[in-house]
Amino acid sequence: MSKVFNFSAGPAMMPSAVLEQAQKELLNWQGLDTSVMEVSHRGKAFMELITQAEQDFRQLYHIPENYKILFLQGGARGQFAAIPMNLIGEKGKALYLTSGHWSATAAKEARNFCEIDEINILQDKAELTVGELDFSAIADNYDYVHYCPNETISGVEIFDLPKVGDAVLVADMSSNILSRQVDISKFGLIYAGAQKNLGPAGITIVIVREDLIGKARKDTPSIWNYDIQAKNDSMINTPPTFAWYLCSLVFKHLLWLGGVKEIAKRNQEKAKLLYDYLDQSKFYCNKVAKENRSLMNVTFTTDNDELNAKFVLEATANGLQALKGHKVLGGMRASIYNAMPMEGVQALIEFMQKFEQENLK
Amino acid sequence: MSKVFNFSAGPAMMPSAVLEQAQKELLNWQGLDTSVMEVSHRGKAFMELITQAEQDFRQLYHIPENYKILFLQGGARGQFAAIPMNLIGEKGKALYLTSGHWSATAAKEARNFCEIDEINILQDKAELTVGELDFSAIADNYDYVHYCPNETISGVEIFDLPKVGDAVLVADMSSNILSRQVDISKFGLIYAGAQKNLGPAGITIVIVREDLIGKARKDTPSIWNYDIQAKNDSMINTPPTFAWYLCSLVFKHLLWLGGVKEIAKRNQEKAKLLYDYLDQSKFYCNKVAKENRSLMNVTFTTDNDELNAKFVLEATANGLQALKGHKVLGGMRASIYNAMPMEGVQALIEFMQKFEQENLK
Repeated sequence: MSKVFNFSAGPAMMPSAVLEQAQKELLNWQGLDTSVMEVSHRGKAFMELITQAEQDFRQLYHIPENYKILFLQGGARGQFAAIPMNLIGEKGKALYLTSGHWSATAAKEARNFCEIDEINILQDKAELTVGELDFSAIADNYDYVHYCPNETISGVEIFDLPKVGDAVLVADMSSNILSRQVDISKFGLIYAGAQKNLGPAGITIVIVREDLIGKARKDTPSIWNYDIQAKNDSMINTPPTFAWYLCSLVFKHLLWLGGVKEIAKRNQEKAKLLYDYLDQSKFYCNKVAKENRSLMNVTFTTDNDELNAKFVLEATANGLQALKGHKVLGGMRASIYNAMPMEGVQALIEFMQKFEQENLK
Repeated sequence: MSKVFNFSAGPAMMPSAVLEQAQKELLNWQGLDTSVMEVSHRGKAFMELITQAEQDFRQLYHIPENYKILFLQGGARGQFAAIPMNLIGEKGKALYLTSGHWSATAAKEARNFCEIDEINILQDKAELTVGELDFSAIADNYDYVHYCPNETISGVEIFDLPKVGDAVLVADMSSNILSRQVDISKFGLIYAGAQKNLGPAGITIVIVREDLIGKARKDTPSIWNYDIQAKNDSMINTPPTFAWYLCSLVFKHLLWLGGVKEIAKRNQEKAKLLYDYLDQSKFYCNKVAKENRSLMNVTFTTDNDELNAKFVLEATANGLQALKGHKVLGGMRASIYNAMPMEGVQALIEFMQKFEQENLK
């Protein structure tokens, strides 16, 4: 079989250089004759690892000094609960902008912890488009405004920042963190599960502006209390050390590649190649407006479900894995996160051409 | 350097056979040409893994059919919060039996979520002893009774089950799960962070009796809502797949060794060797009453702090790692979980003898 490419939406492909290093040192990390997953999180060697990891991540993503970086457990969905617990304050209310499955799920979970208002910003016409994003007139009524800049299921990405005046903007960047530079200073809080662009499943990064820390309600679990975790190096309990280690290798790898600027360029190129191909095709189509097409998750479909199923089956047999679309949408989805090389996208297009030729009536 | 033995209290040593297998298949799991950490948690291959893992764990620990097994995130400390959120019901109150640092920490966290009563069961005399454990007269006033059968810091283990009549007994078994058989049917809920006897840090097992599921308060984070997770194969969000995979390998390994009966025998033998040595020594001492000496964490000390520091330093240089006692207690601690082979304990005793000879005045 030729080389395999894994288009999984998450857990997703990891950089092969990172996996190779992890494999090499799995039984003997730093000459200690023990695995990195067997050492104390509070020992010297591991503490050095996390210090360097934070420094690398801060440099990579240009995170200002007045932001804390927390490495937590529970995934983005854990943060769906933790964010209202930590950020709801005197206004007693949050605004959730919904644009698809994940932003709606975040809003639903938040309702268990606070009062929220919800605005659907997705215009679901012939093409999925995100509407006007100026909320500066109302944002001040809320403790925070939450949105999800990349919806993995539909493949809708929001490139402009919502205007919220001086209100606190919170973003679930699970699927597009480190894929392109954003102006961190415009956000109050950014969070992301690791399993798409950062590392393996099981670790969650929270970037939070310092002045927002320390307002958690009393019944906030201590592992999600930003104040407690910030004061304890994200180690109020035993952290997921192996996942943290893998993130640290991914950060090093991305710096070595040239940082987020270079990554963003590659992501643009990969996505352009695939969308250009889709646009000229009469066999496949993508249903997202050009200005909201995700650079991370490219959704496409033929005109019938049987053909789609056949496509996924044959693609898999050809080493192009996990192209089946999410069950709520059907069709196909190619997740092309940071770790997907250009040659993976090229191999996909080559297969798509062949499949089109064989199946076009 | 001769062979290294890692006495870390957690993250702790893993079975070397497990790490070797993980290393071998890290880049190519099940012939898929991809890492187990890169595949979809909902895909066929990973779903088969979790089905087999549950089956193996159920067989290994003799878990009755009317108990659900959940694989969650957040560690035992996450459960310190999740347990009151899920189990507090009409009685509105829980009883916490405290016997050291971890049971007291669980009680402290629970106070943020419910009313609790606390009873100190540790008699801190010349020797640490656990007192009378009959609470059957009062247990019925509480939604549950919580205790920690093994305190890792002091090395105090409770072998008899607290008597609680028909009340719900909850145990934090993070540090002694699978180390010896317990009668699961006597418990309402057992939970454990993985990083001592089950696998790597970052995954938490909850064994919960079915009739206790479905009572969670509204503001329970969905990732910790036992009902939601039980209905979703512990996959309401992306689980820590690599950690789950490693646990599955540990279960297979323990079954291959002969199951918990064989493991318990070995644990008895290892602990006996070390305690027998300590008891005959005039140089080292252990301060726990014989009936409460932990089979997992053996604490010992010389009569002065400088000698203790020297011991730890020289032991490390001799390949005996992580023997420093917890900072709240000082002295030394040898954590000898399931994965520690007899030869590790023998090597430790050999070093202790040599150190005693060199430093006895």
